[in-house]
Amino acid sequence: MQTNGQEQDVTSYRIAVIGGTGPQGKGLAYRFAKHGHKVVLGSRSSERAEAAAAEIRERVPSGEVSGAGNVDAAAAAEVVLLAVPYDGHDELVDDLAPVLEGRTVISCVNPLGFDKQGPYGLDVQGGSAAESAARIVPGATVVGAFHHVSAVTLWGDAEYLDHEDVLVCGDDEDAKQVAIELARTVTGRDGVDAGRLRLARQLEPLTAVLISINKRYKTRSGIAISGIPGA
Amino acid sequence: MQTNGQEQDVTSYRIAVIGGTGPQGKGLAYRFAKHGHKVVLGSRSSERAEAAAAEIRERVPSGEVSGAGNVDAAAAAEVVLLAVPYDGHDELVDDLAPVLEGRTVISCVNPLGFDKQGPYGLDVQGGSAAESAARIVPGATVVGAFHHVSAVTLWGDAEYLDHEDVLVCGDDEDAKQVAIELARTVTGRDGVDAGRLRLARQLEPLTAVLISINKRYKTRSGIAISGIPGA
Repeated sequence: MQTNGQEQDVTSYRIAVIGGTGPQGKGLAYRFAKHGHKVVLGSRSSERAEAAAAEIRERVPSGEVSGAGNVDAAAAAEVVLLAVPYDGHDELVDDLAPVLEGRTVISCVNPLGFDKQGPYGLDVQGGSAAESAARIVPGATVVGAFHHVSAVTLWGDAEYLDHEDVLVCGDDEDAKQVAIELARTVTGRDGVDAGRLRLARQLEPLTAVLISINKRYKTRSGIAISGIPGA
Repeated sequence: MQTNGQEQDVTSYRIAVIGGTGPQGKGLAYRFAKHGHKVVLGSRSSERAEAAAAEIRERVPSGEVSGAGNVDAAAAAEVVLLAVPYDGHDELVDDLAPVLEGRTVISCVNPLGFDKQGPYGLDVQGGSAAESAARIVPGATVVGAFHHVSAVTLWGDAEYLDHEDVLVCGDDEDAKQVAIELARTVTGRDGVDAGRLRLARQLEPLTAVLISINKRYKTRSGIAISGIPGA
């Protein structure tokens, strides 16, 4: 870790974004890179990861962004963001377990289903994707965050998504603090400490509500929390 | 129904608030009465219901507010708000089933548990309290709404909780519209159509997240949705 020259008192992390070629992962990677963090996009294919990294470098010429296979990406990082589809999530985390040991792992995985009634939260064995990851890799400190920010908005030109909040849940205060701080790259303000990791059961499927609102109002909705002192 | 003289184009409903002596029910009843709706508070004890009604009348001298036993309250209303604890919910709805038939039923029931880790969403047979009510009384049109507004804030002096949104879910458009409209008495603007009734599985336990945030930040937090056109 080192101090970021652009923003005082902000730590620069080496962050691996697993699923970095997907829209959510790429959008968050863009925001992280833009604010001075070193980002390695991870993908099953290191070529596709490198291609996505090149897209971000085009938008953030000063950014330190590269691509690699998932294992290499995670191995090179202090903080690992899981931005993968829920389908196949547990197997992937299991594969990555050795390189996730001892790391701060941030899960923004949304276990959602879609049918003719629209989106809904899937029943997740073990409660939530974040808790599953924590169970599979007990030596990692897992937090949940960044579930609700729209991929399109993340990749957009707005300096900050300043009408939204990033909700962070976790059982490890230090790990939670990393996500709370990284939220600033997205919303321009600290993430909101939403409590224990098990509340990922609420945060993950809440995305179904936002998608439902998006369809109804033809918009890209977001969540904000009112009443936070200093926000 | 009749037009409310104070606010143009707003329907005045006869609303029964079941659980009207509890803080959430009484707070919502106060807001409804203040905006010209006729409110009957329902309770197991009609004396306690009448006492709570008297408290509201003291604050809203022009308000039409009375108290009654739960069955009598529901029988007299077009719209029935279920504002009861989840413990005993299904039995109560079962008892009220004959008088809920054909009515618009709004559930703000939050099935929550608390332990040393704080609040959490209970596993609800049938998904959510709102869906349970709909299953028990198929002849009622059930919507979920008003889960997230703090009882203390509702009973407070603020004209509107204008930094918050009321999220409304349901499968009947007309019933949903009633709740969307009643939300104006609380937030000063339309409730947000959050989609199908099954999304009550997300809305109800989200209250655990807000309570967790309240403890962490010593505040009374609320939910707002960004990106709604015209909001």
